[in-house]
Amino acid sequence: MLKSYGYAAYNSQTPLRTYHFERRAPGSSDVLIEILYCGVCHSDIHQARNEWKRTSYPVVPGHEIIGRVIEVGSAVSTFLAGEFVGVGCMVDACGSCPDCLDHQEQFCDSTVFTYNSFDPHTGKMTYGGYSNQIVVDQRFILRLSGKLDPAAAAPLLCAGITSYSPLRHWGIGKGHKVGVVGLGGLGHMAVKFAHAFGAHVVLFTRSADKEEDALRLGANEIVISTQPEQMQRHLDSFDFILDSIAAAHDLNQYLSLLKRDGTLCLIGIPDQPHPTPSVANLVFRRRSLAGSLMGGIRETQEMLDFCAEHDIVADIELIPIQAINTAYERMLKSDVKYRFVIDMSTLCA
Amino acid sequence: MLKSYGYAAYNSQTPLRTYHFERRAPGSSDVLIEILYCGVCHSDIHQARNEWKRTSYPVVPGHEIIGRVIEVGSAVSTFLAGEFVGVGCMVDACGSCPDCLDHQEQFCDSTVFTYNSFDPHTGKMTYGGYSNQIVVDQRFILRLSGKLDPAAAAPLLCAGITSYSPLRHWGIGKGHKVGVVGLGGLGHMAVKFAHAFGAHVVLFTRSADKEEDALRLGANEIVISTQPEQMQRHLDSFDFILDSIAAAHDLNQYLSLLKRDGTLCLIGIPDQPHPTPSVANLVFRRRSLAGSLMGGIRETQEMLDFCAEHDIVADIELIPIQAINTAYERMLKSDVKYRFVIDMSTLCA
Repeated sequence: MLKSYGYAAYNSQTPLRTYHFERRAPGSSDVLIEILYCGVCHSDIHQARNEWKRTSYPVVPGHEIIGRVIEVGSAVSTFLAGEFVGVGCMVDACGSCPDCLDHQEQFCDSTVFTYNSFDPHTGKMTYGGYSNQIVVDQRFILRLSGKLDPAAAAPLLCAGITSYSPLRHWGIGKGHKVGVVGLGGLGHMAVKFAHAFGAHVVLFTRSADKEEDALRLGANEIVISTQPEQMQRHLDSFDFILDSIAAAHDLNQYLSLLKRDGTLCLIGIPDQPHPTPSVANLVFRRRSLAGSLMGGIRETQEMLDFCAEHDIVADIELIPIQAINTAYERMLKSDVKYRFVIDMSTLCA
Repeated sequence: MLKSYGYAAYNSQTPLRTYHFERRAPGSSDVLIEILYCGVCHSDIHQARNEWKRTSYPVVPGHEIIGRVIEVGSAVSTFLAGEFVGVGCMVDACGSCPDCLDHQEQFCDSTVFTYNSFDPHTGKMTYGGYSNQIVVDQRFILRLSGKLDPAAAAPLLCAGITSYSPLRHWGIGKGHKVGVVGLGGLGHMAVKFAHAFGAHVVLFTRSADKEEDALRLGANEIVISTQPEQMQRHLDSFDFILDSIAAAHDLNQYLSLLKRDGTLCLIGIPDQPHPTPSVANLVFRRRSLAGSLMGGIRETQEMLDFCAEHDIVADIELIPIQAINTAYERMLKSDVKYRFVIDMSTLCA
């Protein structure tokens, strides 16, 4: 076993603090990674505070991991010590179900998530990226181009792939009018990707003060979603709208903006249910309401390569691990542009 | 003007009875059709009773029309007197919007519906198929093969195309597992079409006594939707489910039966909203909830030709026009297998 350390929530109420734990010794197909940066995702807060009611404490959050390869197992030929690599939301899956065979491991029933997930290798729960090192099977490790700033690349591993995958799945490209609802960690990546794919991008937000930023990130237009006359102007005009808002809200106002055969895709899961969408709003334009979940490992690599080619990373605020509890509070007030990333060199044993 | 007669609702409460009215004289691109049969659709009841709050009285319902060409205008070259033809839910549309140019006239903003719809030709409301004759622009007339029983073909014009179109749009065929929810006018056609397209067809119903019929119509299996253990056995297994139920019900129980990337398509519009679908149910399998509306004229012709080739018609109960009010009452009790069709030869002036 490998003595490791990081920051953990010990219960749902008290601040995260130092935690010492053990990771498995690397097996023949494993890679030992020194963690350099870890993005801070909203799910980290949900899990730290047991808001999904399945947290096993102490929990070490973090699934937007960028690190450097320290050591590889005897069966690992594709990664070399010293390389920059990434680890996202998953560290294992069955490998043989239809979803795994389709490279959609995120839908596998046996997915092992990067933290707070039962790990059949150890019989214990997994520990995430708010830590000094991690051991991961080579099949779940991504390669990071040296062209990208490794700190700003960390959020690509969750926020990035979660917005990239649905845009790719629904074939977004030139000639499409695409809406992005919400300019947070997911939304700001969605704007960048939709723009890079050649779409006409409209950002929906409640905050007029986000306009300048949205345009800089790649939006062509911004619509203040609380202004009915602004919304009205876009009726029946969108091919696709990606809705990143994780709080309950009216879906009809976005469904009605879709043209015939358009899709409203949800990537945020609210605590409270959304008001029920109108069936007429679906039927009378043959519209779809869909959901999407992260992306598979192959697609995540494809995204990272696309990012390297198009110079895309997240807009981040780098913080020391000691600021993590303050960062959580700021995230809950949407006071971050647009993702916190922990500089793991600040972590002390 | 052409003196015409039929059966009309004079208000939302009293039974339908004889009504004399005028139709426009056929113009150069019009066809005058003697109506032989007219199917009875649930929307006829909704409109007769003003349940959609936009009925203009007297209203002559009926949009599943089969008739014989009596006379054609000077610019009509594709229809000849004596031919069997059909008229469905629409009798006109703008012809120049993107929907019309895509042969999806049902989504055109200027669609003229077959009855209770403003007719720019006359400045009055349109009158439907519970009548002796109708005048329709040639672009909205369907050709009926002599191979098909004309009475049993009438419901193809609405119930038929409404179930055919989504199955085609979502590419249903061999190797697909398809669910059909509800065995009424729409549902029994959906079972026939899904079977004819080569899918494995599962009928969901609350009535165990429909099993024999469902199997005869082409279902491979029947699931009693009120039996959780029967539903449970089909979790995560459907490519597509067509839901024909127009009453509010739990969509989650069907969403959860879809495999990854599956679609639940609604073709019934309930008076009361469905309980809100679970976002997790969409996200965790990338499922879609969609709606579909009838079909375009070109697709309706394609469907009629497919029906002729595969010997598909509706299962009907032929009634005299004098039985229409009783038929409405029986439909409200689901006491019809599976569509009433009016024999218009029983209509007296």
